Amino acid sequence: MQFHHHGYISGEPRIRPATGTGIDRPETLPDTMDVLIVGAGPAGHIAAAQLAQFPGIHTRMIERRGERLNLGHADGIQSRSVETFQAFGFAERVMQEGYHITAMAFWTPDPDNPKNIIRSGLPADGSYQISEFPHLIVNQARIQDYFAEAMMNAPAKIKIDFGWQFVSLQVHDDQDYPVEIQLRGSALAQEGLERTVRAKYVIGCDGAHSKVRTAIGRVMSGSESMHAWGVMDVVASTDFPDIRTKCAIQSHDGGNILLIPREGGYLFRMYVDLGVIDEHNAKSIRATPIQDIAARANQIIHPYTLQVKNVAWFSVYEVAHRLTDHFDDVDQADIGTRSPRVFITGDACHTHSAKAGQGMNVSMQDGFNIAWKIAHVLDGRSPAALLDTYSAERQVVASDLIRFDREWSTLMATPPDQLQDPAEVEKYYVKTFEFPSGFMTQYTPSMITGGQQHQNLASGYPVGKRFKSSPVVRVCDMNVLELGHQAPADGRWRIYAFADQTAPGQASALTDFADWLAADPHSPIVRTPATLDPDAWIDAKVIYQQRFDTVNINMVPAVFKPLVGPYALQDYEKVFAASTGPGGDGSDIFTERGISRDGAIVIVRPDQYVAHVLPLSAHQDVGAFFDAVLGPIAP
Amino acid sequence: MQFHHHGYISGEPRIRPATGTGIDRPETLPDTMDVLIVGAGPAGHIAAAQLAQFPGIHTRMIERRGERLNLGHADGIQSRSVETFQAFGFAERVMQEGYHITAMAFWTPDPDNPKNIIRSGLPADGSYQISEFPHLIVNQARIQDYFAEAMMNAPAKIKIDFGWQFVSLQVHDDQDYPVEIQLRGSALAQEGLERTVRAKYVIGCDGAHSKVRTAIGRVMSGSESMHAWGVMDVVASTDFPDIRTKCAIQSHDGGNILLIPREGGYLFRMYVDLGVIDEHNAKSIRATPIQDIAARANQIIHPYTLQVKNVAWFSVYEVAHRLTDHFDDVDQADIGTRSPRVFITGDACHTHSAKAGQGMNVSMQDGFNIAWKIAHVLDGRSPAALLDTYSAERQVVASDLIRFDREWSTLMATPPDQLQDPAEVEKYYVKTFEFPSGFMTQYTPSMITGGQQHQNLASGYPVGKRFKSSPVVRVCDMNVLELGHQAPADGRWRIYAFADQTAPGQASALTDFADWLAADPHSPIVRTPATLDPDAWIDAKVIYQQRFDTVNINMVPAVFKPLVGPYALQDYEKVFAASTGPGGDGSDIFTERGISRDGAIVIVRPDQYVAHVLPLSAHQDVGAFFDAVLGPIAP
Repeated sequence: MQFHHHGYISGEPRIRPATGTGIDRPETLPDTMDVLIVGAGPAGHIAAAQLAQFPGIHTRMIERRGERLNLGHADGIQSRSVETFQAFGFAERVMQEGYHITAMAFWTPDPDNPKNIIRSGLPADGSYQISEFPHLIVNQARIQDYFAEAMMNAPAKIKIDFGWQFVSLQVHDDQDYPVEIQLRGSALAQEGLERTVRAKYVIGCDGAHSKVRTAIGRVMSGSESMHAWGVMDVVASTDFPDIRTKCAIQSHDGGNILLIPREGGYLFRMYVDLGVIDEHNAKSIRATPIQDIAARANQIIHPYTLQVKNVAWFSVYEVAHRLTDHFDDVDQADIGTRSPRVFITGDACHTHSAKAGQGMNVSMQDGFNIAWKIAHVLDGRSPAALLDTYSAERQVVASDLIRFDREWSTLMATPPDQLQDPAEVEKYYVKTFEFPSGFMTQYTPSMITGGQQHQNLASGYPVGKRFKSSPVVRVCDMNVLELGHQAPADGRWRIYAFADQTAPGQASALTDFADWLAADPHSPIVRTPATLDPDAWIDAKVIYQQRFDTVNINMVPAVFKPLVGPYALQDYEKVFAASTGPGGDGSDIFTERGISRDGAIVIVRPDQYVAHVLPLSAHQDVGAFFDAVLGPIAP
Repeated sequence: MQFHHHGYISGEPRIRPATGTGIDRPETLPDTMDVLIVGAGPAGHIAAAQLAQFPGIHTRMIERRGERLNLGHADGIQSRSVETFQAFGFAERVMQEGYHITAMAFWTPDPDNPKNIIRSGLPADGSYQISEFPHLIVNQARIQDYFAEAMMNAPAKIKIDFGWQFVSLQVHDDQDYPVEIQLRGSALAQEGLERTVRAKYVIGCDGAHSKVRTAIGRVMSGSESMHAWGVMDVVASTDFPDIRTKCAIQSHDGGNILLIPREGGYLFRMYVDLGVIDEHNAKSIRATPIQDIAARANQIIHPYTLQVKNVAWFSVYEVAHRLTDHFDDVDQADIGTRSPRVFITGDACHTHSAKAGQGMNVSMQDGFNIAWKIAHVLDGRSPAALLDTYSAERQVVASDLIRFDREWSTLMATPPDQLQDPAEVEKYYVKTFEFPSGFMTQYTPSMITGGQQHQNLASGYPVGKRFKSSPVVRVCDMNVLELGHQAPADGRWRIYAFADQTAPGQASALTDFADWLAADPHSPIVRTPATLDPDAWIDAKVIYQQRFDTVNINMVPAVFKPLVGPYALQDYEKVFAASTGPGGDGSDIFTERGISRDGAIVIVRPDQYVAHVLPLSAHQDVGAFFDAVLGPIAP
């Protein structure tokens, strides 16, 4: 965390001073705004938190409810989401608060006495091999609280406009504020009022029944399965020994339960299979009382019992798998001829079962993906073509998710005697773990994702996948740090220059690259407006192969030690050495991430995905890449 | 973190509901109160945060200033303090915010060219061998912010009463509120007003010029050295390569600097030696301008230079080493005949140089030590004799501190040519590291500290020293956790039952001890009032030697799985297995902390110090120990 460079900060350094639109932000919803986010769920919150880093942009987020969410229905937090929270500054607190999934227990009928269940497997949760962050359970309401805090800590000071419901919108491409939006007051003083507001962009985060989706003519397609589930968040007395472990429980009569222990040590969630339902019977199933769900749970966990003591929430629902074909308001035929103005995210685009704990996570990545792109286009950093990449990137992810979820939820609902192998559920879980952890996303080549020609220079940073962290030593203070954690969600592109073997300051490929970065007209640092800090657009870090105590920081090229703030103070925190441990003999990021000893350039997007891997000598390729991202240099 | 067991908590679970005095707490200072804390510095804040866990007690903390501290003069946070912050719930955030000291650089005159300094040593900071917590630099103002938050998160909801200055006090032993205190309004609406209030106990945390100390007739003794230091918190441009490393710098002309990089990446503190001063010249030295301090710093760091760009704070002071002989209002001759009513802490008892970064740390341990004792006496849990242990324990610590600090600050001020060995400063630093880390404190036998007869049963938990953490596995959810971190500063005593080798539920020494704990009239759990949760006074945990996946939680004695809260829910989080790592093959707390395979009982105080080590069979000794702590059982 860097502060004090604009003068001494006495209070909470996480609260940044208001600037730009954060200073005189209207308390009530104005008539015009740059960005309107419809719906304050996980996708809306992360988009607002990202846009809050751009005080030049006036962002509003409306929510139909009159107040903060009290109890959300999502609670699974994959490690990829915790990584994301780290970038927004609150991972530690969520980890402290959440339930940590370390393993999953599989309970199946006892072969000797099938009326009883026994624990047949206990595979470790796969997150631990893929990320330094855990797999958590925390209620959606709390995640939104943390994002709301991040929105207020950031310079644009974004608060939610509660009590406004989206009605419809029209796009007029030729106007300054092309999107005209009709709203209706749904709570608070404005209840019942009709209003029209205008925005440059709209992000629809308004859930499975999205009216934004309807307004732009997108439709959900897919099937609604007729399998019903009861879900309950309860505290209970029980002798079931794995009550504090995530469990998949299958009983001899085809019943099954997904048990999710919840944060706080006592509460748990149970998804109880209520069986295949008659199409004409859906309504009556939805009226199943909690007592019946608990009774069914008791049948399934026989010989154990549970007695519900307090119910926080319960519901009955059917599984639906649906997807829209396109996530913005540009029809397929018009791509390239007009630029999107309205985007949809999360459940507005894709719905599926809750079983794999995916919904909130994928929605947040949708919101993260679109927000920085809108911000860069609005502040003039990038051409509008950047916005076309949102639907192209995220529709594929949603489609993969629905395929995965359909397989997983079907498998869980299959009676044991119809499985090919009693351990089939467990095997599928272990085999596919990277997907539900959130790490299978790999974007394909586009204006912001390069090709794989030089992938061999950094095999541990696959182009298109998220930038995986590894420990390094910060030279100036010898702190062993996760390199990936030094990248807050501030909307900046990052260039990681992994040095060749020459010592700092000597003639080398690294030195040549640094010279190019510092001086060439196509360098994105040179293109950063002179009124801003030199690292305002591009955060360029260098990682040396040498031991930390042999890197002479005075010899490191100046482009990696920019002078920032009103006192032109040197930033020392972008210079790293590869190997950790006492005396620098620990892990080495070059080895861990498969980086060539001749060095490499790794370019990372503001949403943490690897955009390109290039040789240190590829100055022209770096320039060309950023000429596309930032737009051609004005003649 | 445990919650939801009194019903679903939607918001921040760290904010506990107000109870007792926290519900209708008067906004302004009332005429009577249970405890009055004088002075809102580090000692006062931790005492208030501890007392805030006791909503039956009405605690007030007055502060002369009219508002929050803007910039404090202390900033060194030893690992022992970070351990303490963990118990108060904010260690993670302080660690995220603070500067981490990983090593200390020693710069001395270049033997070949003595006018230049060179780096002659870079020993690692010793904290890392002693604690899992780091050695930090964070400003005192921020530490107080975190404690103030903890005060408000706790059930008693304590806020500071700003703008009141302590004038004097008198103790009338025969009255319900024996301490009569005269105050004067020093700021805000009450400025200039005179008031008398009454309290049962007073804690004087009012600094080196303590008026509480004067009022109880204690005097500081010791010498005021006539060595002057300039201290400045600045941002600067410099080519000194270790500007972001803690340094002791000695120049050929006898000048020396202690350089402390500060949180935020840019600010640093320099203590610049201004030399031995003439007794009659003290006033003029104190008027030394910042320019002169900076000029002297430039001389010392030659051939490097620094140019100050912004000054957050600077001061000139002389080192004073002083100590009072007794930390409460009971004269030596009266100990045992009357009970103390007024206590002094921190700088009110002991002053010394700032060089070893000790002041704030020792002060906080003073406040932590006295607060739970007052609370236990006030709520009837313990006899008043408990209060005699405060001065007895903490005066020795202060005396050791002053001896250490005198050696260290003298050594740092000694010109290199007068040292026996050029590396003498570095060698002293390395040799003595455990002391300034805060881990040398070892209380001697008393009513709350047992003898060492059974120390061999747990050699890694020296009786009288703080309970050192080690990783264990929580059985119910297989989480690998630091055992020491499962002990929030909630004022409870803790009993750690390290089991013998028998499986849970079988006849064994552990089972016998559990039976005794659950049923014997001398068991402190049996003595806990029936209106409270069974673990309200004593948090009893069990650690098995078996692998976590072979501990059948249903067979664990019920005393380690108490039924708590209005729904009588089982607490699963007190049952641990020793060995960590995949498959339980990692570290083993029995090995790490030298615990007998026949098991052991380790009793730990509310302030984290080991009170006793006993065999599992020593039921009577456990009973006798708690009969002293809780008072004899009423006939």
